[in-house]
Amino acid sequence: MQSIRVELGERSYPIHIGSDILDDASLYVPHLASGRAAIVTNTVVAPLYLARVREALGTAGIQTLDIVVPDGEQAKEWRTLDQILDALMAARCDRQTTLIALGGGVVGDLAGFAAAVYQRGVPFIQLPTTLLAQVDSSVGGKTGINHPRGKNMIGAFHQPRAVITDVATLRTLPARELSAGLAEVIKHGLALDDAFTAWLEANVGRLLSGDADALTHAVRRSCELKAQVVAADERESGRRALLNFGHTFAHAIETGLGYGTWLHGEAVAAGMVMAAELSLRAGMIGEEDLRRVRELLGRARLPVAGPPDLTPDRYLELMAIDKKAAGGRIRFVVLEAIGRAVLRADLREGLVREAIAARSAAAVAS
Amino acid sequence: MQSIRVELGERSYPIHIGSDILDDASLYVPHLASGRAAIVTNTVVAPLYLARVREALGTAGIQTLDIVVPDGEQAKEWRTLDQILDALMAARCDRQTTLIALGGGVVGDLAGFAAAVYQRGVPFIQLPTTLLAQVDSSVGGKTGINHPRGKNMIGAFHQPRAVITDVATLRTLPARELSAGLAEVIKHGLALDDAFTAWLEANVGRLLSGDADALTHAVRRSCELKAQVVAADERESGRRALLNFGHTFAHAIETGLGYGTWLHGEAVAAGMVMAAELSLRAGMIGEEDLRRVRELLGRARLPVAGPPDLTPDRYLELMAIDKKAAGGRIRFVVLEAIGRAVLRADLREGLVREAIAARSAAAVAS
Repeated sequence: MQSIRVELGERSYPIHIGSDILDDASLYVPHLASGRAAIVTNTVVAPLYLARVREALGTAGIQTLDIVVPDGEQAKEWRTLDQILDALMAARCDRQTTLIALGGGVVGDLAGFAAAVYQRGVPFIQLPTTLLAQVDSSVGGKTGINHPRGKNMIGAFHQPRAVITDVATLRTLPARELSAGLAEVIKHGLALDDAFTAWLEANVGRLLSGDADALTHAVRRSCELKAQVVAADERESGRRALLNFGHTFAHAIETGLGYGTWLHGEAVAAGMVMAAELSLRAGMIGEEDLRRVRELLGRARLPVAGPPDLTPDRYLELMAIDKKAAGGRIRFVVLEAIGRAVLRADLREGLVREAIAARSAAAVAS
Repeated sequence: MQSIRVELGERSYPIHIGSDILDDASLYVPHLASGRAAIVTNTVVAPLYLARVREALGTAGIQTLDIVVPDGEQAKEWRTLDQILDALMAARCDRQTTLIALGGGVVGDLAGFAAAVYQRGVPFIQLPTTLLAQVDSSVGGKTGINHPRGKNMIGAFHQPRAVITDVATLRTLPARELSAGLAEVIKHGLALDDAFTAWLEANVGRLLSGDADALTHAVRRSCELKAQVVAADERESGRRALLNFGHTFAHAIETGLGYGTWLHGEAVAAGMVMAAELSLRAGMIGEEDLRRVRELLGRARLPVAGPPDLTPDRYLELMAIDKKAAGGRIRFVVLEAIGRAVLRADLREGLVREAIAARSAAAVAS
């Protein structure tokens, strides 16, 4: 098992990464505020791992409550949040009850937001069981739900007490979701670390085949890169925005198609290619860099173009309300080089349209 | 105009207290994150003050959005919160939009919670227009909504950028609500400051008659007392609990009767008498102290006993889920003396039952 620490002053917390560590109660106990915890999971993950976690905690003398919510991005909304809060209220959980989020990003975002607002804040622990959640949503303290008019529009910053990442859970992850998680891993490389990008180019095959050592390295390096950014900028005013590389376009794709049609990572992959196209058109990177972006994502079995039925006009309409819009202007994260992203608010709309159009046609030559 | 400052490090903020200061744009402008603000108010307050605030801000070049929610405690729930969030989304408000809460405690709690969760947090300014909100809910950063199973169970700590308290707005406040606000003023005296209690005993008549100087002093001293406690204990782990004097019983009354039957301050008044009865029975204060508590509240035209139809059993049942319950035990704020409250978790249930019974009969000799 490897451990890293996210440095956030009094809100610092450890991330433990290993194989088959899900039922090691000693990893949980130091972070519980009392002998009581509520395990929030979904209908897909519950049959796979809930009993193991519950029994491990029970053996350690922890009383647990199970809260099983529906699966899928469409569950990330008020009614599911209310289901969690209502279950906590019905069981008379007090402020010392720790919420444990067992599942992917949706479960983590929902349980984290429930922990942020239940009695104005209770502790929570993340047990991410998808690659996406392991490398992305479990680091940084972003929690929340979607609004019919936009993704992740309602939420809170609420840091977990600990993250326990068991890469063995990736064995039960569908191949499509493994690829979607790789999109965020690749994002960390492209935006922040050229050497890690090169490692990914050399090891993408091992990652796709589920090699535990390769996955452990990829998860650890991704978490380190994200944790460094988050530690420097907890509230997303500056550097943290770089983690949104590809996301402005991706949110437009997800909102435009309706949540859940594409996986988040798939939209991010297409969004990163669009952002790279924009970087090229702004004269910041060359054709060879753009090719590397496309090729690495393609080898990870990810889309390298947006859905054919969204027009550039529709993207611009959807992006105007994206929460990264500042004072009405759309800011874009673009690349100066592989491994070096920057935030720009001065790019002409015409360039943005061209970048979208280049990656929106029904048949795009990758 | 007088100003005090709530000291909370980087979240410190000023409270400006004066008469007819509602439309002084210079008090708002330094605290706005951009040239855009959303004014959240309710159907009762909007006809009285909304135009004045909107016009003052408009003259200062601030673009405003009006969001008018229903009046009353029953509006403090998911649907109203969603109304606010939906209006912000529909108007494409970004993270630099400042929410302005114009109204009483319900509007402040709703708008504050909306500000806490909209795009994971936007700034907000409080304009409290009830005495209760001026002395209590506008200081401390508590925001939130009710849950069908309990009051204030869903929420966040989110500090305002500034509080602008116009005591002239109390002219339009119904007498019953003025008295309810006095309950919290008296609470600050009884729990924290004997000299202020003596001042209140001498000036309760002036306060009831709407004397602006007396109200300004009462609001200012209440805010100072509360601000000192909040500054020392922002997250309510210790000393801040003293501000809950009377509130454990009060929440039981409000939940037991259904929200809105009694005003919050009325329930707090009855709750403080019960807490004083409990203090007497625990041997902490004498009969004369109890008499002072009853008499001051009675002179402020507040109830000094609970509703006749709630039994001690029902109180205990309702209090067990109160959010001040720690690890299953009920903690009570009791008096060691007038002006000196303490938190106790070791009081026998029998004493609590006696204190409730003494203040629950249909005909209680005050």
